[in-house]
Amino acid sequence: MDSYQRNIDKLQKKLNYIFKNTSLLKESLTHKSLKKPYNNERLEFLGDAVLDLIVGEFLFHHFKDKSEGSLSKMRASLVSEVAFFKLARAINLGEYVLLSTSQENNGGRNRPSILSDTFEAIMGVIYLESGIEELKRVFYPLMQQEFEINEKMLFEDYKSALQEYTQEVLTCIPDYRIINEEGPDHEKTFMVEVIINGESMAKASGHSKKNAQQRAAKIALEIFTNNQTKI
Amino acid sequence: MDSYQRNIDKLQKKLNYIFKNTSLLKESLTHKSLKKPYNNERLEFLGDAVLDLIVGEFLFHHFKDKSEGSLSKMRASLVSEVAFFKLARAINLGEYVLLSTSQENNGGRNRPSILSDTFEAIMGVIYLESGIEELKRVFYPLMQQEFEINEKMLFEDYKSALQEYTQEVLTCIPDYRIINEEGPDHEKTFMVEVIINGESMAKASGHSKKNAQQRAAKIALEIFTNNQTKI
Repeated sequence: MDSYQRNIDKLQKKLNYIFKNTSLLKESLTHKSLKKPYNNERLEFLGDAVLDLIVGEFLFHHFKDKSEGSLSKMRASLVSEVAFFKLARAINLGEYVLLSTSQENNGGRNRPSILSDTFEAIMGVIYLESGIEELKRVFYPLMQQEFEINEKMLFEDYKSALQEYTQEVLTCIPDYRIINEEGPDHEKTFMVEVIINGESMAKASGHSKKNAQQRAAKIALEIFTNNQTKI
Repeated sequence: MDSYQRNIDKLQKKLNYIFKNTSLLKESLTHKSLKKPYNNERLEFLGDAVLDLIVGEFLFHHFKDKSEGSLSKMRASLVSEVAFFKLARAINLGEYVLLSTSQENNGGRNRPSILSDTFEAIMGVIYLESGIEELKRVFYPLMQQEFEINEKMLFEDYKSALQEYTQEVLTCIPDYRIINEEGPDHEKTFMVEVIINGESMAKASGHSKKNAQQRAAKIALEIFTNNQTKI
């Protein structure tokens, strides 16, 4: 048994799912950096849509009193690069991704965009070959194991999300500093800076320190997820 | 048989589908303006996601040589308010929507946002009660009947889309006027204005007349779909 097959076996065990179509599975694990005639981008397109649907459906059934706006908000925190990166790490997906040596040397196996996209592609394969109910059987337990799905999600906490992210990817935690205070006591505005690995990542203001910190964390998260070269 | 039931019968015939859950169907037809304890917004949330998936899947299978970027672009023109409005009109959905008298008097039965949202909600019901394969059986023929699905979709034509839209909703066609030309012959910039019902809707510039017209049409379409009070 070669190492690719050993890896597939481990992945199948983690997912509690046996893949049927080995070439589709290989396609889903193949990053575009390998410049093969196929890569996982088309499957990611499909996986992205089916995850959006089944997460939406889960929330639809579990929160019968919630409006469409609340459901959308809850889904946004479960269907995101940060969220799928977490799920990808939970199944050690980094070990199985097929990428170029240069991507590998650049930390590609740990890069949120690569892991999140590959995760979507693999879910796309399960949907294609086994259908939506089988995908739910695989995906829902993983999602429920990694996320606390409750009404608190409506009050999205960017500080926690950022800390979780930097701990996993950079093995450090963010530091917040108040860099300015303005205005009279009852109407103060705070300017907060978030520092990661000694580097200023983002600044934001707010009418409370907590509010300003949340905003700065949100900006930092956006920087990380849109521009992974900064990591 | 009351008029609601007669309408349902007509709708079922048009869709070639018999609804199973009458209260779910009623919810999907109920606009929020009626201020009932239920309306179609939650079902629209679900329908939106499932249509995104099945249209994506259709394109995935039919265009095996197309990249994820091309698939996304093609999907964007099939999964949009303008597109669903067209499908809603094809099944005469305006006749069956349940809305308040004031919305009714304001032309609500013909409003793109209301018809498009209701269409999504109804598709959400079919998915919920009969599953994704049954939804595909209902939706795909309708989509293929109303849209030419081919590679030309990649060159999205905003002028045609705008004309189709204004013809259906306002029974008039857009008029384009060149309002400025600047720069030397080999590097001219044209400013074009699109006029609808005698009113200037949008202006845009481009290095060719055609290009400027397409941009102006795009802006006008965005204005229509984001701000239906203008209609």
